[in-house]
Amino acid sequence: MGILVVGSVAFDSVETPFGVVENVLGGSATYFATSASYFADVSLVAVVGEDFPAEHISFLESRNIDLRGLTRSSGKTFSWKGKYGYDLNEAQTLETKLNVFETFKPTIPAEYADAEFLFLANIDPDLQMDVVRQVKNPRVIASDTMNYWISSKAESLKNVIGKVDILIINDAEARQLSQEPNLVKAARQILSLGVKTLIVKRGEYGVLMFTGSNIFAAPAYPLEKVFDPTGAGDTFAGGFMGYLANTGNLSDAGIRQAIIFGSVMASYNVEDFSLDRMRSLTYKEIEERYRSFKAMTYFEGLPESA
Amino acid sequence: MGILVVGSVAFDSVETPFGVVENVLGGSATYFATSASYFADVSLVAVVGEDFPAEHISFLESRNIDLRGLTRSSGKTFSWKGKYGYDLNEAQTLETKLNVFETFKPTIPAEYADAEFLFLANIDPDLQMDVVRQVKNPRVIASDTMNYWISSKAESLKNVIGKVDILIINDAEARQLSQEPNLVKAARQILSLGVKTLIVKRGEYGVLMFTGSNIFAAPAYPLEKVFDPTGAGDTFAGGFMGYLANTGNLSDAGIRQAIIFGSVMASYNVEDFSLDRMRSLTYKEIEERYRSFKAMTYFEGLPESA
Repeated sequence: MGILVVGSVAFDSVETPFGVVENVLGGSATYFATSASYFADVSLVAVVGEDFPAEHISFLESRNIDLRGLTRSSGKTFSWKGKYGYDLNEAQTLETKLNVFETFKPTIPAEYADAEFLFLANIDPDLQMDVVRQVKNPRVIASDTMNYWISSKAESLKNVIGKVDILIINDAEARQLSQEPNLVKAARQILSLGVKTLIVKRGEYGVLMFTGSNIFAAPAYPLEKVFDPTGAGDTFAGGFMGYLANTGNLSDAGIRQAIIFGSVMASYNVEDFSLDRMRSLTYKEIEERYRSFKAMTYFEGLPESA
Repeated sequence: MGILVVGSVAFDSVETPFGVVENVLGGSATYFATSASYFADVSLVAVVGEDFPAEHISFLESRNIDLRGLTRSSGKTFSWKGKYGYDLNEAQTLETKLNVFETFKPTIPAEYADAEFLFLANIDPDLQMDVVRQVKNPRVIASDTMNYWISSKAESLKNVIGKVDILIINDAEARQLSQEPNLVKAARQILSLGVKTLIVKRGEYGVLMFTGSNIFAAPAYPLEKVFDPTGAGDTFAGGFMGYLANTGNLSDAGIRQAIIFGSVMASYNVEDFSLDRMRSLTYKEIEERYRSFKAMTYFEGLPESA
């Protein structure tokens, strides 16, 4: 089953304690689509400027990503510049140039309107709602957001969340959105907005999933080499939605497996700058690390009580 | 099999966003012994002052803790005063009065010298080493420490760690001890000191276990109600060692189960101030929460590869 993602394609300049890169391929839709492409067919809706090079198009095409929804506008591509210290959980944004992204109004091509899996990456919640209106009858809508929209467009955001099946945000965002420091209470409040499943990303501490009746806790993979956490959240979401779309299994068990596949993809992506690790990553490696997650979290249960 | 713990018995005054308590029962050996007492026979070596009330003795006796090693000295009992903000992971120490603990020289009663499981709670590493010399031939020695000893007595501490089977410290201590921000590298370095198993406590993010060949990741139980995290680490260690001593199973599988039992005990203890939750906790509740941990972390593996 096919996935449609709407978000950003960007140039990133990133500094971490392990190196510096300038104007490399980035953007939420880029990370999501590349990661999801290991599992399912992906179509991408985004905008780039005249400066977007053919090599990046070729890379996305090499992942079989359908780019008919990628518009090229006059002007420059969205660019972001950020820095991480040894605490790789939080980026310090040094510069954001929206450029062509400033006037981005996502138009969903007619041939994508039947997409069964829709991911709304972190864009203006009013635009997210526009996209929801354009996609006819998706089986699953998942979305992300950020602190900026939570503080500036809370009402619009809550309306979108009411239309979404799965919300994928980080712990700081969950606390900000609910105004509640305790994560379990925060989750209950967010679920009351109408979303069925809440996935809370906690960086190096892994992921918590909350539904009305259920909590699932997945660790992050303990890595020796974390070069660049940029895009980890979207890479997680891509692996997660990709696996769901691949199997069509939306049961609790299916969603848990999808969370582990998402975690696997994120764990690989942070091993190198930009999407560079994705250029060589094989499906065999993905399965290997899934098995490592299983081995790393397994413990024996207790015998059934009498 | 019996457990011997050497550490502190104290009065705690604690302020959290949820309340204030003054001069309540606390101390590393108290938390450890009470938690371990649900699983195995525990003997305690510590010192209190003349002001230590009979009711606390009665409570410890009600848990069948052997108090023949609890010395009463002239002077006052060790007292600690601390405060937590909404980030319950880190205490701010407001006051420490060592009192009778200042001259504490643990003497292991002859009848304890055969203890099979020994826990060295967070005390001066020179005293920890004294204890190791006094206990004849323990099957398992585990120990804790703190930032103060890492910076002031690094050499003594490393000597103790070389004698210990299982080191149980938090993530900040692991980083400080190894001078290495990456936890996987930090773990490898600490294991090279001669300890077989390193358990890194990460507060609300759970626990990572490292051995030479293996990593195990356990989440913390997501709680709605965390009143007072004081003693969580020692309560974890108590449940952990208690279960190991109960089963005598020191295999990787046994240690993993023990980590979950330790996590269960810590998750209950933080639900109330001091050791108050332990006053009503039943073994049935412990098993229930163990099952919740299992349900919360379970996901399906992949089929064996061809």
